[in-house]
Amino acid sequence: MKVLITGIDGYSGWPLALHLARRGHDVVGIDNFVTRKRVKEVGSWSATPIASFPKRQEAAKKLLGKTIQFYKGDLAKYPFLLDVVRREKPDAIVHLAEQRSAPYSMIDVDHAVRTQVENITGTLHLLYAIREASPETHLVKMGTMGEYGTPNVDIPEGFFDVDFHGKRDHLPFPRQAGSWYHWSKVFDSGDVMFATKIWGLKSTDVMQGVIYGTRTPEITDDALLTRFDFDETWGTALNRFAVEAVLGLPITPYGRGGQIRGFIALEDSVQSLRIAVENPPKSSEYRVFNQFDAAYSVNDLAELTHRVARDLGLNPRIEHPPDPRVEAEQHYYNPIHEHLPALGYKRTRNLEDVLREIFRDLIRFRRRIEARRHVVLPTVDWRQADNTGSLTARSHPAPAAPAGSDTPPAAAAAPDTSGTSA
Amino acid sequence: MKVLITGIDGYSGWPLALHLARRGHDVVGIDNFVTRKRVKEVGSWSATPIASFPKRQEAAKKLLGKTIQFYKGDLAKYPFLLDVVRREKPDAIVHLAEQRSAPYSMIDVDHAVRTQVENITGTLHLLYAIREASPETHLVKMGTMGEYGTPNVDIPEGFFDVDFHGKRDHLPFPRQAGSWYHWSKVFDSGDVMFATKIWGLKSTDVMQGVIYGTRTPEITDDALLTRFDFDETWGTALNRFAVEAVLGLPITPYGRGGQIRGFIALEDSVQSLRIAVENPPKSSEYRVFNQFDAAYSVNDLAELTHRVARDLGLNPRIEHPPDPRVEAEQHYYNPIHEHLPALGYKRTRNLEDVLREIFRDLIRFRRRIEARRHVVLPTVDWRQADNTGSLTARSHPAPAAPAGSDTPPAAAAAPDTSGTSA
Repeated sequence: MKVLITGIDGYSGWPLALHLARRGHDVVGIDNFVTRKRVKEVGSWSATPIASFPKRQEAAKKLLGKTIQFYKGDLAKYPFLLDVVRREKPDAIVHLAEQRSAPYSMIDVDHAVRTQVENITGTLHLLYAIREASPETHLVKMGTMGEYGTPNVDIPEGFFDVDFHGKRDHLPFPRQAGSWYHWSKVFDSGDVMFATKIWGLKSTDVMQGVIYGTRTPEITDDALLTRFDFDETWGTALNRFAVEAVLGLPITPYGRGGQIRGFIALEDSVQSLRIAVENPPKSSEYRVFNQFDAAYSVNDLAELTHRVARDLGLNPRIEHPPDPRVEAEQHYYNPIHEHLPALGYKRTRNLEDVLREIFRDLIRFRRRIEARRHVVLPTVDWRQADNTGSLTARSHPAPAAPAGSDTPPAAAAAPDTSGTSA
Repeated sequence: MKVLITGIDGYSGWPLALHLARRGHDVVGIDNFVTRKRVKEVGSWSATPIASFPKRQEAAKKLLGKTIQFYKGDLAKYPFLLDVVRREKPDAIVHLAEQRSAPYSMIDVDHAVRTQVENITGTLHLLYAIREASPETHLVKMGTMGEYGTPNVDIPEGFFDVDFHGKRDHLPFPRQAGSWYHWSKVFDSGDVMFATKIWGLKSTDVMQGVIYGTRTPEITDDALLTRFDFDETWGTALNRFAVEAVLGLPITPYGRGGQIRGFIALEDSVQSLRIAVENPPKSSEYRVFNQFDAAYSVNDLAELTHRVARDLGLNPRIEHPPDPRVEAEQHYYNPIHEHLPALGYKRTRNLEDVLREIFRDLIRFRRRIEARRHVVLPTVDWRQADNTGSLTARSHPAPAAPAGSDTPPAAAAAPDTSGTSA
């Protein structure tokens, strides 16, 4: 099959490209490299040194014997996108090209608007491009488990039977997102569902849990590494905890730490998306997958990180800073996830093993995280309208980066391997 | 109280301003006059000749003995909006400044994106301006009954008890909108609900039915008339039917005509919004009103229009063109509407009486609708990705307007009363 990946340069886009290509699919990608730029804007970079895209393509060709095609461009430009879709007419498009950080969306009014406008615009453009140029293309759109929030009932996969005042209907499950970013994903889901209905498209909406890990089987060389963010804005809680432990900082679950979320290993996330691509829905079908393996509380993550760190001779404390988010710190959480297993999905990784892998990589690239240790703790507070002051003060305390750069265009035409010798 | 109305120049904004001012409130308005411009873009104008805003202010001052303050500007400009909110610190803001046409949003990809981006941006800017400059301000945000779609169960006012797998929660009712425009209102609702929660704001979200009518008690002079749209893009079904009858065209309910919607008279819509303003919620409260009086099918509207037209000596046929929308043409429809009556709301008008009033005005301004008879029938098809060709071909068949203009800036510094002599 031919698969177009929007956001191919990203954390999961790149490993997905490698996996699909190794499975024999033809892979085409689009990216505008905005995540590399924005991570730099908050004073951080990837813990893993990531190669420029041309170097990635080169290394991938060595591994796979074939080329991953690439279009540099922005989904905000409709003529560009329409042209790519018309030219490639892919069997599937996996849409990962979105602003993906909740804290980024909460920085101030401009970041809130930018997040929602960019994400909605990209998705609408994609839907129209498919309708106009390739209506048989299956759209696999990345959503998030965070769309549902934390209701006090089980969370079905997208739809459920409602009995109300003596009548029944099968309706979308209510969404209660927890950041402007998460709402932007809710909005995209509405738009994809509606376009599928009016135009008879084929779509899969993936409500994905938090992804963890640095590795997939296809990442056989440092030039193939994917990014790993650990700063407050772009990193996940687990990523931050591991980095804190390596740096000798306290591990910092926010608030009481009872916030539970669904999680999935990078390798299994890639497996899930591949299964979605290889098993398209019928025309006019909008299907929803809850894509995660297991639910953990933030305290679970902190304690596991603590245990793994001790095995490695590290001895971090656990501290609980106030929760900068507005969220339930203790709650029920039981999402159903049966659609993917029904298509053959099988979990292959467990959290503890992957966490040990993460630690190995972080220790290898320790100098890179040392150089950015000031970006780990939270400064963006959900209750404030404007967090730019604290963020700016925190992001740029140190002079120019001593340990290399992960922005590709000119500065790093060669892969940044500065950390590999640490 | 001091009330800021965004979109004060619009169909319901202007009568609301007059009503609130007559009740003794201080009224301040914002508008960018984009609706006047966009109605012109599709080749149409208001059936009622509407005065320029300065003339409206002048006439209102004569009626009320006080001035309705006005800021010309766009909610897309955050510094402008923040400055107005900071300067005025209103007790309430009634937010009507949105792109409000479903067919407009379905014209093509640019209109789809523009509708969602403008509406979301305006609402986010308003939420941030309130948070930053006037957090005690009560936001009354105009939504639409169309957010809910037409589920096969009763529609509660925003929230309902969900029993699922043996557990219970009180959750937002699922949304299933029927156009990019309607989805933009769903998105706004999510953003308002979320901002209210994280920042402890006060908000009322009005799921309003279709408004009908040309008159409120405060419209005592032609210089105070509000707009009345009848073209395919900006007019409602009822407006089109009445215009068709006056022009001797067939009345044209789309498809089978079993589509049922909630309706409310302009005067009662204004009453509802006034009641919302005068009875604000508590801090952190996000409340939802289903604001309509009675539900009618499109066939009900067509038959009533036919009957009233016959009483006036007109004899229109009823014809059913194919439905250009994607919607159920026969369905269950039973939304609950108890919140407003509990605050003292009482219906004052009925559809038949108001329809007779509409006919009186349309006959008075007959020359204006004669001059635009070609814009009534549908050309925007929900199933097409690009409707610009048919729309452009249809919108500009005739040379320059013979019967006056309703764009205010220079062309119509005096109220356009060209129709009043007809």
